[in-house]
Amino acid sequence: MKIGMLGTGPVGRNLATKLVQLGHEVKMGSRTADNKDATAWAQANGAKASRGTFADAAAFGEIIFNVTNGQHSLEALKSAGEKNLNGKILVDVANPLDFSTGELKLTVSNTDSLGEQVQRAFPKAKVVKALNTVNTDIQVNPSLLPGDHDLFISGDDKAAKAKVTELLKSFGWKSIIDLGGIKSARGQEALLLMFMSLSNAMPNEYFNYKVVRKKR
Amino acid sequence: MKIGMLGTGPVGRNLATKLVQLGHEVKMGSRTADNKDATAWAQANGAKASRGTFADAAAFGEIIFNVTNGQHSLEALKSAGEKNLNGKILVDVANPLDFSTGELKLTVSNTDSLGEQVQRAFPKAKVVKALNTVNTDIQVNPSLLPGDHDLFISGDDKAAKAKVTELLKSFGWKSIIDLGGIKSARGQEALLLMFMSLSNAMPNEYFNYKVVRKKR
Repeated sequence: MKIGMLGTGPVGRNLATKLVQLGHEVKMGSRTADNKDATAWAQANGAKASRGTFADAAAFGEIIFNVTNGQHSLEALKSAGEKNLNGKILVDVANPLDFSTGELKLTVSNTDSLGEQVQRAFPKAKVVKALNTVNTDIQVNPSLLPGDHDLFISGDDKAAKAKVTELLKSFGWKSIIDLGGIKSARGQEALLLMFMSLSNAMPNEYFNYKVVRKKR
Repeated sequence: MKIGMLGTGPVGRNLATKLVQLGHEVKMGSRTADNKDATAWAQANGAKASRGTFADAAAFGEIIFNVTNGQHSLEALKSAGEKNLNGKILVDVANPLDFSTGELKLTVSNTDSLGEQVQRAFPKAKVVKALNTVNTDIQVNPSLLPGDHDLFISGDDKAAKAKVTELLKSFGWKSIIDLGGIKSARGQEALLLMFMSLSNAMPNEYFNYKVVRKKR
């Protein structure tokens, strides 16, 4: 499959590398076509890896990943171009984090979410919120953690969620819980506040949740 | 131990009953001394169960539980009286929920929490946030869910957290994760947004999280 990866940070590079390893063609997009990180990544990852602008990557992909800084995601997606997103699956991995005050806060939460903002801004894209609840190494290698643990997806388009679920299973995810419409991205993004609390209690960021349910 | 239970709703009655069953003396407090639910609860639970005003219950307890509606907790605690809370452990179980718009939102979140508000309002109380992340039946009977699953506590006073941990273990909780200072209540309260998203995906509200950690 052809995939557009919007963003060149560690999360984007990790996901892009995994996708190339799985046989997909990935174009990594950034504000400028000659971004240093994207160029280095493309050079290191063979013929199926390429780079360009946000618009180049979005035009290229059948599926688009938003892995930009959550504070700037809407701007980056505008730069990618609505026509390049319309009708496509847009996997929103970004977290709307603001560290500018020295302590983490979400730029949107509680009564709205970045996932919803993206869906409202691009109503013809099929936004699926996923992968934002775990650290980047676990995103692409869930077996780093023992036993069962859960990933969550949110989105209004069922077929899009099914497609993303299939892709995530190819990463090694065994349990993917469909939370419902894109509004449920509020829950996934709120987990970031718990992530920050738990990170302080844990020796590292290598943890995730298993949802334990009542015995029948 | 003598325990003051501030609040007469299902969560308060359930916790109060459990505490009486464990041999503690519990006084349930409400705005008026003759609250119907508190009276019925006290009559049904024997000599160790009693009821009174918020102030009566707070004066009675060595440990105080706040199980009032989160929107009105600060007001209820003021009514309980600062002098009746000073120096005592105050277990804050409340969630700052507002359903008035027809959809759940938190009245405080992200950059603050009810736990922190309570601690700021009553600086000489030892506030411990706990139990707000699971439904009331699981609070008092964690074995309703299979295997291991986690409860969280937050608070600035280590001895208070140790005491509350001991009490929670007597409820049957085996794994209680200390998230750190009361500021980490933000994480616990944010879980409510995830709770709402997950509730829609689950057959019922009988679920909890197990934190899965990296293999060593």
